[in-house]
Amino acid sequence: VKQSEFELIERLRSKESKHLRKDTFIGIGDDCAVLQLPSYKLQNTNNNQEPRNKIQIKPKYQNQNYQLITTDTLLEGTHFKIAKKNKKPLFFNLGVKVLIANISDISSMGGYPTHALVTIGIPKSVKDEDVKNLYAGINSIAKKHDIDIVGGDTIRSSKLLVSITLMGEVEKENLLTRSGAKVGDVILATGKFGFPAFTTYNLLLTTYYSLSPVARTIAKSHLATAMIDSSDGLARSVEEICKRSKLGAKIFSSEIPIAKGATLKQVLFGGEEYELIFTVPKSKVANMLKKVKATVVGEIVDKGLFLVDSSQKIKSLKLQDFKHF
Amino acid sequence: VKQSEFELIERLRSKESKHLRKDTFIGIGDDCAVLQLPSYKLQNTNNNQEPRNKIQIKPKYQNQNYQLITTDTLLEGTHFKIAKKNKKPLFFNLGVKVLIANISDISSMGGYPTHALVTIGIPKSVKDEDVKNLYAGINSIAKKHDIDIVGGDTIRSSKLLVSITLMGEVEKENLLTRSGAKVGDVILATGKFGFPAFTTYNLLLTTYYSLSPVARTIAKSHLATAMIDSSDGLARSVEEICKRSKLGAKIFSSEIPIAKGATLKQVLFGGEEYELIFTVPKSKVANMLKKVKATVVGEIVDKGLFLVDSSQKIKSLKLQDFKHF
Repeated sequence: VKQSEFELIERLRSKESKHLRKDTFIGIGDDCAVLQLPSYKLQNTNNNQEPRNKIQIKPKYQNQNYQLITTDTLLEGTHFKIAKKNKKPLFFNLGVKVLIANISDISSMGGYPTHALVTIGIPKSVKDEDVKNLYAGINSIAKKHDIDIVGGDTIRSSKLLVSITLMGEVEKENLLTRSGAKVGDVILATGKFGFPAFTTYNLLLTTYYSLSPVARTIAKSHLATAMIDSSDGLARSVEEICKRSKLGAKIFSSEIPIAKGATLKQVLFGGEEYELIFTVPKSKVANMLKKVKATVVGEIVDKGLFLVDSSQKIKSLKLQDFKHF
Repeated sequence: VKQSEFELIERLRSKESKHLRKDTFIGIGDDCAVLQLPSYKLQNTNNNQEPRNKIQIKPKYQNQNYQLITTDTLLEGTHFKIAKKNKKPLFFNLGVKVLIANISDISSMGGYPTHALVTIGIPKSVKDEDVKNLYAGINSIAKKHDIDIVGGDTIRSSKLLVSITLMGEVEKENLLTRSGAKVGDVILATGKFGFPAFTTYNLLLTTYYSLSPVARTIAKSHLATAMIDSSDGLARSVEEICKRSKLGAKIFSSEIPIAKGATLKQVLFGGEEYELIFTVPKSKVANMLKKVKATVVGEIVDKGLFLVDSSQKIKSLKLQDFKHF
């Protein structure tokens, strides 16, 4: 695919994002879509024990939670290759990874997952054993997160395809989006960066810890102003927060926790880490760091995207730098 | 894919269908998953105008609607081929068809669609123009049905892939599943059968009328006992109602409205029609036929699946007959 096509799709998608329904709270543009769950009719529980006309109070009530929805697809040839050796861990890890990618989207908005649809496309070369391992990987993560798999689709395919749509919920007061950052906010990150850039094509080295508890702690603290996962790379994730918050950022390149052996390019642009990038007002950072383990990796400024190295040298980070990476 | 693998997946999926969450009303096994929307907290709107202790009534309230979710994928090579000529209508129709397939699932449970996620996989050979036409097809149907496209995924792919997840809602009292048929119920069908069997691979001849209003009329009438769409073919759809209702059926082969030029095999097993197959108690058929245009194509019996021809000759319809079709 030429880059221009992806840009076209982004334009087409953003045209669509002018949503028409009242129950669409956030459409395209964040880690998940956010829906207002429908409103409810009060049941008459009066049971005729009290005359209707004596009831002066009309209770108003509202939905406690937003619903979150996201989808992620892994395709053979594009996201991974199937090697003959180590097929078993590959299929298992593939199942793990595609569900984790979705959970990461739900987590980064402060929510928890609930229901999944699993679509798989199976080529002739794939054996029963492989399919079992794929499902075992998906189920192992689903069980841990109390996710019900409620549907999906199975199709013939020339390349192995695994696509999951995941639903979740978040209490309205805990919702975190990409768009709430303020000038002066500190940018925090969980975990280390650069490691998955080595392993994109085999998945064998996928390590996994559940982001969910950390993300929920951040959301419930009400100290953060914006959050995103780092699946598209640290620099791209910071840029997304900036774009949605209509601000800029400085990234402190020498402060980023780096996975052993990773280059700065892999750290900034590699992606595929399911870590959290979030912003917190300066005055609340100490409080936040008592609750979760994270590292200060930058700060929000009014515009631009900059890299600051250990000698305080500032370099402008251009979009094109990572588009052509 | 070998048949055995699809059977394995069915087993793996049905293992998963033992769902664990209380808010999963129906998991795998019907046209859509059916979720109990979460419960809600009553807001205190008392405004201190009346003492709390004077309020004796504790209003109970419940969710009015179920949420419906389904997903459908079309893949180049498996579901369609891209020919050089007529690319424009092909891409447009592809967008139309994948969304209709999903709407059909929502409709056949008595519901209406609300939100969609669109995932597309694009090969290098696909042009900007093609992508625009694909989206135009999707959007034309989305607009008609008041569907917001709220997310999705765009990936590189060697084959064109379009996958949609569609959400919808249905008032609890209007939900229709595959499992409510009773012995003696009459099987009704909308539309004609056999036509799409000619056109599976080019999509150019896709005709389209919206099932939604018909399906909603059937659901709101409260006269039907079970409903399914006919996308897997008339015989398979009747068999699914039987399987879920733990009963059998006779299909009156000479009564089925047949598309011009279609063979009986195409009529029974062709599929890809987005028509409705539904069951109605004998005493209510006349009433139902005043509300919707449909044809009596069979009746529910206690077990087995039979074909009855115009001379009343009964032939057993074996599962294998259409598995190996």
